[in-house]
Amino acid sequence: MTATMDENRVTIFDTTLRDGEQSPGASMDMAEKLKIALFLEEMGVDVIEAGFPIASAGDFEAVHQIANTLKNVTVCALSRADRGDIECCAAAIAPAPRRRIHTFISTSALHMKYKLRMTPEQVHERVGESVRYARTFTDDVEWSAEDGSRTDSDFLCRCVEAAIRAGARTINIPDTVGYAIPDEFSSRIAMLLNRVPNIDRAILSVHCHNDLGLAVANALAAVQAGARQVECTLNGLGERAGNAALEEIVMALRTRYDHLPFTTGIKTELITRASKLVSAITGFVVQPNKAIVGANAFAHEAGIHQDGLLKHAATYEIMPPEAVGLSQAKIVLGKHSGRRAFREKVRTLLGYELSEHALEEAFRRFKDLADRKKEIFEEDLTALVGDELAQGLQGEDRIRFGTLEVMCGSRHPSADLELVIDGVVQGVSATGNGPIDAIFIAIRAIFPHAARLQLYQVHAVTQGTDAQAEVTVRLEENGRSVNGYGADTDTLVASARAYVNALNRLLVKREKTAPTALSA
Amino acid sequence: MTATMDENRVTIFDTTLRDGEQSPGASMDMAEKLKIALFLEEMGVDVIEAGFPIASAGDFEAVHQIANTLKNVTVCALSRADRGDIECCAAAIAPAPRRRIHTFISTSALHMKYKLRMTPEQVHERVGESVRYARTFTDDVEWSAEDGSRTDSDFLCRCVEAAIRAGARTINIPDTVGYAIPDEFSSRIAMLLNRVPNIDRAILSVHCHNDLGLAVANALAAVQAGARQVECTLNGLGERAGNAALEEIVMALRTRYDHLPFTTGIKTELITRASKLVSAITGFVVQPNKAIVGANAFAHEAGIHQDGLLKHAATYEIMPPEAVGLSQAKIVLGKHSGRRAFREKVRTLLGYELSEHALEEAFRRFKDLADRKKEIFEEDLTALVGDELAQGLQGEDRIRFGTLEVMCGSRHPSADLELVIDGVVQGVSATGNGPIDAIFIAIRAIFPHAARLQLYQVHAVTQGTDAQAEVTVRLEENGRSVNGYGADTDTLVASARAYVNALNRLLVKREKTAPTALSA
Repeated sequence: MTATMDENRVTIFDTTLRDGEQSPGASMDMAEKLKIALFLEEMGVDVIEAGFPIASAGDFEAVHQIANTLKNVTVCALSRADRGDIECCAAAIAPAPRRRIHTFISTSALHMKYKLRMTPEQVHERVGESVRYARTFTDDVEWSAEDGSRTDSDFLCRCVEAAIRAGARTINIPDTVGYAIPDEFSSRIAMLLNRVPNIDRAILSVHCHNDLGLAVANALAAVQAGARQVECTLNGLGERAGNAALEEIVMALRTRYDHLPFTTGIKTELITRASKLVSAITGFVVQPNKAIVGANAFAHEAGIHQDGLLKHAATYEIMPPEAVGLSQAKIVLGKHSGRRAFREKVRTLLGYELSEHALEEAFRRFKDLADRKKEIFEEDLTALVGDELAQGLQGEDRIRFGTLEVMCGSRHPSADLELVIDGVVQGVSATGNGPIDAIFIAIRAIFPHAARLQLYQVHAVTQGTDAQAEVTVRLEENGRSVNGYGADTDTLVASARAYVNALNRLLVKREKTAPTALSA
Repeated sequence: MTATMDENRVTIFDTTLRDGEQSPGASMDMAEKLKIALFLEEMGVDVIEAGFPIASAGDFEAVHQIANTLKNVTVCALSRADRGDIECCAAAIAPAPRRRIHTFISTSALHMKYKLRMTPEQVHERVGESVRYARTFTDDVEWSAEDGSRTDSDFLCRCVEAAIRAGARTINIPDTVGYAIPDEFSSRIAMLLNRVPNIDRAILSVHCHNDLGLAVANALAAVQAGARQVECTLNGLGERAGNAALEEIVMALRTRYDHLPFTTGIKTELITRASKLVSAITGFVVQPNKAIVGANAFAHEAGIHQDGLLKHAATYEIMPPEAVGLSQAKIVLGKHSGRRAFREKVRTLLGYELSEHALEEAFRRFKDLADRKKEIFEEDLTALVGDELAQGLQGEDRIRFGTLEVMCGSRHPSADLELVIDGVVQGVSATGNGPIDAIFIAIRAIFPHAARLQLYQVHAVTQGTDAQAEVTVRLEENGRSVNGYGADTDTLVASARAYVNALNRLLVKREKTAPTALSA
């Protein structure tokens, strides 16, 4: 048994890399997944669900590499209730010192009838078989009753009992479609604890979706009823309206310990950085009024509130901004800062070392930026290094940004662009509907491709008109989508860099993805 | 008594224009507030909290104009527990056929001691006085116990009883700091219903903040316990992490009527348009994974889910997208469409008529756009008309966009800009850090001003590289902030238009805002 020492300790199971990555448009490449996984480990997450290995060769590779790298966290992967899925899953997580197979099957009448086309008896049989088979690869097996919140209670009890009998140590009850209401979901958890005879041999877990805005409330209600694992994602990423947000769960438990006497292992001071990392990689913005990590979450506008705050912080502030690692934008470096100070700062900001080459290039661009921009903030460095990493992530990009000149405005926009393709400089002039259109047409003229632009997003890194622009470009080709990233004080240059970055990633993806990825 | 016929009917009290507008950066001008108010009325909201009249002359004017215009909804305004506040409030709502004064005072020990510096007895006295005074202006008075979720139960009961005795018909219990947990908040509501002797003479209401991500869950738990009014905002806008989102409350009640047998008067089919309207006006993005109104809320990525959906929609879909008025992007008009078809389409999209002048100008730009862009979607029309309205909102803008030529890219960016200031064409050339910087420097050279750029945001209206760009610019001057809006296929032209729009609004605001607005 994997019972923790403290019966009120809640296991934080992060599925940003699996369910989060299933958000339309949020797909990440291997290097990005690894970066997030390392950060999650540092932040104190207990279990990382790294992917769904059978879904594609790329998913398998990502899980395998994360399993190879992480030492202080349980690496988990998802599989359906088939032997092939489970074997694939086991192979992907094999290198991890602590590894978990998470196998699932639908148990609701609706899903069994229309999706699985199986009888309840067949499903019940499969539960035991799949868990027993998974146990031949690892002692740590989690079983999920997909659509558990809409499953008949008697049948759910029988399936849970069978899964535990077959060796599952964690039993997860997903609210797959985000349908549950807290009091109802809490009763369901209490019902399982009361009725399933061998329930004391497993940890109960929940996985809540946010379709009605209730994911966090349902998860907390389940913990109050006896669940001791919560599946969640950073920024509440995930299918449709997403999953329960890790940051909200953790901060609710920390802030309301008087009413919710449960603990987690999360270093909450890393929450803000974790949120920004995921937002930057996926291109998914966090709305200003998002709880905990929104730009306004700790901002007070009304005069009344400001007045109260000055008199006594607790009047309007239930948690200090520092608890989530929030600090004011700070001027961090000036144009006279040296290589050493730069390296230190970058290490602190990123949480890891850049390669010598990347560091050198980033330093050169920092000096260049410092010449043009009065104040260099932490956000500027993050953007600049992020751009550097984006350009360098694939190691040897086939396409490199060269030079760009654009004329536009009220006249017809035109772009003169040079790219370096496989080491050869190629240039073209193009006109377009707007300057961005002209640039993208020029890129397509130099390097023809059929990918479709799905998302174009500009973010000003800091306030003021001399701020750097961060651009995210999402390209889609044959159902595969990739995000590209670029940053520059010139929005148009940042746009070109982002598009080129996305294109390089697409080329890598074309090579790596198995031609017939299973639609799972 | 204002008891509704149906005891399970929940009153929807929208405070987008009051608490929502208090979000840092979300301030709206009068025309924008009126536009939202009209839409809320059409959508079937029961009560609109239109503002806090004592806060500024602009707030007063906006409430007054909304009270003058709306006929089918209760217009409410907020006031502290002072005679001056209440009189100001009464004057602002006077023209409304159905009007409510909402007066509040803090009742928690923390707030009374540090913010109010009053004893509980003084506060208790003031509750009765303020409600009695408000009742001299209207029969419909709501009283709020600020920080009610952290108020001593006995004292809360005494204050509620006093407010009802003095004539309050609605008693609101705010979770001002977003601190409550659903089961705890629900007990508090049940406690009031059980203990306050005259509670049957009032409707219980809740106002929940989202600091821990629990606003919607707390509001629903309160309704289950007996509350029959919910205060909420579109997109969950509001102080810090915002308020309970109207769209989530309403759709949870509708979708889970089996478990939450309560009704509202909301036409849910208008929810998506309402959300977009508020997002466009405030410049507050809605994150893709936001429940109900996020871009991904109804999108299914995983192969498994898509497969299930094709077999039976209910497997993964708990509400049809049409229920919130969501439809696929549609090609709506072509280059051969005439003025009449255009007018019809615009009326349907906006819900009201454009003036002849605005329509003529919008039609001209539509023809121009149709020449350049292959497919014109609903979103294109909304953006184009939105830009037209933005330029024309103030009636007689002092500054008008003329022409723009920009050269940029790897060379030093420069902008040649012409603006029309008070009817006179003025031009300038400027260089900058990037093209946007050069344009904004040029604007400042032609029309000097001290406002600071707080937000610069670009949104691609549709997919594809020839999409129009919508730009939002937020300027701040002496604590007043305004949003400007522009749309064009050229991002840089859209940026210039948005900046000019913001500047015009700032000029209007300078004139209209009382020099010494009360910080309330």
